[in-house]
Amino acid sequence: MRTAFKLSTLLIFPALVVISLVIFYPRASKAINNSEECLNCHVSKGITASAIRDWKLSKHFEAGVACADCHIPVKEAVKEIHESKSNCEDKRVRRLVSPRNCAQCHEDKVNEFERGKHALAWVAMMAMPTTKDQPSVLIEGEKGCGGCHRIGRDEGKCDACHTRHRFSTIEARKPEACMTCHMGFDHPQWEMWSTSKHGTIYFTEGKNWDFSKPLKDWYKEPYKADPSTPRAPVCQTCHMPNGDHGVKTAWGFLALRVAEKDPEWAKLRNTIMRGLGVLDEKGNFTERVKIVEAGKVVRLTAEEWQAERDRMLKVCSQCHSPSYAKEQLDKADEVIKESDKLMAEAIEIVESLYKDGIIERPKDYPLHTDLLRFYEVRHPIEQKLYVMFLEHRMRSFQGAFHMNPDYQHWYGWAEMKRDLAEIKHEAEMLRKQFAQAKQKKK
Amino acid sequence: MRTAFKLSTLLIFPALVVISLVIFYPRASKAINNSEECLNCHVSKGITASAIRDWKLSKHFEAGVACADCHIPVKEAVKEIHESKSNCEDKRVRRLVSPRNCAQCHEDKVNEFERGKHALAWVAMMAMPTTKDQPSVLIEGEKGCGGCHRIGRDEGKCDACHTRHRFSTIEARKPEACMTCHMGFDHPQWEMWSTSKHGTIYFTEGKNWDFSKPLKDWYKEPYKADPSTPRAPVCQTCHMPNGDHGVKTAWGFLALRVAEKDPEWAKLRNTIMRGLGVLDEKGNFTERVKIVEAGKVVRLTAEEWQAERDRMLKVCSQCHSPSYAKEQLDKADEVIKESDKLMAEAIEIVESLYKDGIIERPKDYPLHTDLLRFYEVRHPIEQKLYVMFLEHRMRSFQGAFHMNPDYQHWYGWAEMKRDLAEIKHEAEMLRKQFAQAKQKKK
Amino acid sequence: MRTAFKLSTLLIFPALVVISLVIFYPRASKAINNSEECLNCHVSKGITASAIRDWKLSKHFEAGVACADCHIPVKEAVKEIHESKSNCEDKRVRRLVSPRNCAQCHEDKVNEFERGKHALAWVAMMAMPTTKDQPSVLIEGEKGCGGCHRIGRDEGKCDACHTRHRFSTIEARKPEACMTCHMGFDHPQWEMWSTSKHGTIYFTEGKNWDFSKPLKDWYKEPYKADPSTPRAPVCQTCHMPNGDHGVKTAWGFLALRVAEKDPEWAKLRNTIMRGLGVLDEKGNFTERVKIVEAGKVVRLTAEEWQAERDRMLKVCSQCHSPSYAKEQLDKADEVIKESDKLMAEAIEIVESLYKDGIIERPKDYPLHTDLLRFYEVRHPIEQKLYVMFLEHRMRSFQGAFHMNPDYQHWYGWAEMKRDLAEIKHEAEMLRKQFAQAKQKKK
Repeated sequence: MRTAFKLSTLLIFPALVVISLVIFYPRASKAINNSEECLNCHVSKGITASAIRDWKLSKHFEAGVACADCHIPVKEAVKEIHESKSNCEDKRVRRLVSPRNCAQCHEDKVNEFERGKHALAWVAMMAMPTTKDQPSVLIEGEKGCGGCHRIGRDEGKCDACHTRHRFSTIEARKPEACMTCHMGFDHPQWEMWSTSKHGTIYFTEGKNWDFSKPLKDWYKEPYKADPSTPRAPVCQTCHMPNGDHGVKTAWGFLALRVAEKDPEWAKLRNTIMRGLGVLDEKGNFTERVKIVEAGKVVRLTAEEWQAERDRMLKVCSQCHSPSYAKEQLDKADEVIKESDKLMAEAIEIVESLYKDGIIERPKDYPLHTDLLRFYEVRHPIEQKLYVMFLEHRMRSFQGAFHMNPDYQHWYGWAEMKRDLAEIKHEAEMLRKQFAQAKQKKK
Repeated sequence: MRTAFKLSTLLIFPALVVISLVIFYPRASKAINNSEECLNCHVSKGITASAIRDWKLSKHFEAGVACADCHIPVKEAVKEIHESKSNCEDKRVRRLVSPRNCAQCHEDKVNEFERGKHALAWVAMMAMPTTKDQPSVLIEGEKGCGGCHRIGRDEGKCDACHTRHRFSTIEARKPEACMTCHMGFDHPQWEMWSTSKHGTIYFTEGKNWDFSKPLKDWYKEPYKADPSTPRAPVCQTCHMPNGDHGVKTAWGFLALRVAEKDPEWAKLRNTIMRGLGVLDEKGNFTERVKIVEAGKVVRLTAEEWQAERDRMLKVCSQCHSPSYAKEQLDKADEVIKESDKLMAEAIEIVESLYKDGIIERPKDYPLHTDLLRFYEVRHPIEQKLYVMFLEHRMRSFQGAFHMNPDYQHWYGWAEMKRDLAEIKHEAEMLRKQFAQAKQKKK
Repeated sequence: MRTAFKLSTLLIFPALVVISLVIFYPRASKAINNSEECLNCHVSKGITASAIRDWKLSKHFEAGVACADCHIPVKEAVKEIHESKSNCEDKRVRRLVSPRNCAQCHEDKVNEFERGKHALAWVAMMAMPTTKDQPSVLIEGEKGCGGCHRIGRDEGKCDACHTRHRFSTIEARKPEACMTCHMGFDHPQWEMWSTSKHGTIYFTEGKNWDFSKPLKDWYKEPYKADPSTPRAPVCQTCHMPNGDHGVKTAWGFLALRVAEKDPEWAKLRNTIMRGLGVLDEKGNFTERVKIVEAGKVVRLTAEEWQAERDRMLKVCSQCHSPSYAKEQLDKADEVIKESDKLMAEAIEIVESLYKDGIIERPKDYPLHTDLLRFYEVRHPIEQKLYVMFLEHRMRSFQGAFHMNPDYQHWYGWAEMKRDLAEIKHEAEMLRKQFAQAKQKKK
């Protein structure tokens, strides 16, 4: 008897839900009507409740966007989406959604995204020399590296910032939208910014700011005193000016640029690029430069660098005087150069250990250090070098640009100083031991 | 004259306070009347102001709960409470409060707590082999370990989550209630969750959620679109489903289970359990298994594990499709297994150094490594092994379950890889030196 | 034509802005009138928009404070302000503002600040032995050390806590105002407090608290139940009682006091003060004691220590019973002593390596260790010693005072234990190698 009762409930309940939706959201009746079949089945099975709840609270719902508008891939969607599996009875439906579907309404944003850096995140990860050596659950399974780099998978995942199924612009304009990926080890921008003075102002006043406004309108009336105008920049202010989904900066992820007028710095940079395997021993580009180009990780021309810098200066000048803004950015550039001095010295020390046969170079290694192998190296001195590059050098210059002197100094600069001292000492010991062993053989 | 004035104020002031309380909180007159003596004395002495302020804003006050209802221990309270000291003139009064007193009104919650994990926190800490070697101010003094493990002291401390003297359910349902203990080194769940996408949604929308609702009612109407319904899980959603104070999970604190069908994984787990001193060299349980059993740190049967997993799956399915939820949990299981491969390899390397007499084994040591000694070990390779186990392996699998790929990878997996490389290298060096020293003796 | 149009806009627009300001803020007409010239120029050039926006929302604006009131230095301002550069056409104007200008209205607060610790921040940084060796962009450029220590530069920077151009007391009373400098490596007070139970209460209820009230009035009616009264202390509650800008504590930054009744502890402290170069080998003060005195980093007399302790006890007693408060502070003192045992042992180990010629002492070194050189040391064992002192000992006792047992234990105590074990082991190895090398020479 109990089962019979349950069954009848199952038949009535979805109908009631659908009816009540149409009553309470009259403007959204199109969304409901076009989703009726989906809702009936999902509600009767009692599944994906949050997807339905969130969608009903979304602008999509108001605008009449139905389940199938997103979940039946358009023709232009990539193969990976078309061929992805699905549990739905309607064999056209996919769990994964293609940005090509989003582009039906948001073509300009999808295009901006495609021209930008995030679109390359998956490719950049797959191109790293040791990605193939990690368990697939971290990569394809998205539990480690893949969990953030998925923003560029299958041509892009809009829900990386506009979370399902609200896809809220308000959420995506708040700095917390960026933190899940821009935190930790090699890019603690969230930690830096949130504890900077800009962060202080956000956390003490941000609740009054109007995040429903498009970014391009935030400072439209620059002299109007309005407590709803953000008094400090959030991530999006500087990295998505006017809402541009390209998210590029002058220095890029690694604070490297190919064209360099300062000869002292050019030399340091060459050492670092050799350490990354982008230049060979003679200073020529290696095959690996293609990764760097494809990933747009490095600015290749002076013009490209300057264009991004000018754009940032304009952003800073929405609040600060242009002269103050320029000073701050120039100083942060100087921090990169100072950090590069320490980094290049450390790279050369380790390189010379290879050259002199003091530490073993695996067969598939280039003649120099290979910082892109990350933790996939054997000797503690190589481990230290990778951490110096990817954790501490990053924090040193990122801290300077994100106006967090504590991060810059203690988690960046101070650690680099310590790394270098320890690398020097270790190299000295290794050389001494090597000499002793040699003498013994004689 | 000045003293006389003061004294008269002291006599009048408490009376005024009491009168005004009765006037402004008529429904609470019972609480006031039954607390009159306490209030008169405390107010005249000018002490414990926040306790009185908070109590007056609490549901306890509204409901007529007076000071003595909590601070005079009921007969059933443990000896430690009855014998604890007190500064009160009324010799029946204790500063410490027993959960037995709480049980007068909240019997169900106290019972749930007692059947759960938190109730064992004090016992588990005291059972650790090196707790006795730490300064008592960190343990009994509650300034270190004891500060969190006190949640299980004297049969339980409800104020660990419902802070004095509001004892608010709203506070205790918010994720911040958990953070003071579930943060840092070996269990940075707060850091992971708060920067995950679930955390993003909480920080950007959580202010609209209705935390005054009991947990069991949060998703009672699963398809109703209501901005006051939590759109993302907080700690309590998954770890206290329906408000259950037992807070247990399938994998438990250490991600170990005794029953294991996968033979490859069973072997890895045996190595880890040997490293913990729970198994001996022959694979038999040691005395120490009693700690693990008593602390409910490990699931002993497959059924017990599966029951907790099924419960969690049900929680996830309040929002996600069951198939998606299962996939995510399965992948996190896989992360444990991958982490265990690195961990077991490292344990075996260190074990073999003991066996071959290369590093010294203190007399009170088992024949294998002893990860439960934490930092109370002498050799740097042992220190590294403990950190690999307690900091990095924990972060690797916790990051996977808490949907934080950055934590999983950079603070868990990447660090384990580095630990293992360094342990391997150090072991190699130690073996070489040992061989050289041996040869010299000849 | 386009240029002509632009020019006419430039002429009209500033006038409109000024007019609209006078219309909408009639009470602030004095501020406007006295700033007219500045506004006309800045608005026509389109610069410093946020300064103008923020000022218009500030109490300064309401009170009629004009640009020149701050930006034309008063006679009493220090030379560095008078001689600082400026881009303004009016040659009297400076970008930098002197606290002497602030003192025109806020004399009491400026005086409190000057008697306090923050006023010494710049001097203290410059006195460190290796500050001169860091790149100037980190120091004078304020991108590293200088970015926080600037609070004491040029006699003080009020905008370190009251950010430009709101200079809000509400902002400065919130704990986030302190975090940019009181975070990270050697003083993660923000991290500790914000995740303590005090922090939990702030994050779950703080939005209801009335931060517009002066600190001295927060607990004026101690028994009045009012949800707008802070239920937990923020940084300012304890460190700025009654709004005192002196921000001093009993133990000071380094948890050292010269006068010590406990003979065991006195011996440990002497070792630490020797390690800091404040005492010489014979226990006499060195030249360096002047830095410590000037920076008020250490309490020199028992009375001075006790006065600050008594003041803190009074603060705690605004909420807790005095006996509970005293117990907690006494226990935290005990944590310092326990930490000092580990610290002194480690210092003596490294000292003895110098004495016995096992590690090289640079020519400009004192006869003992020099913890104030921070990372500017060569040997890994010296690096470890500095980290043990400046990162881990600090976290151990700060965690105890800030009621964060997890920080105390895992990021303080546990790390000190590990440091000591590793320092011991390393020293043993160095001694063995030294002995072998000596024997060979024979």
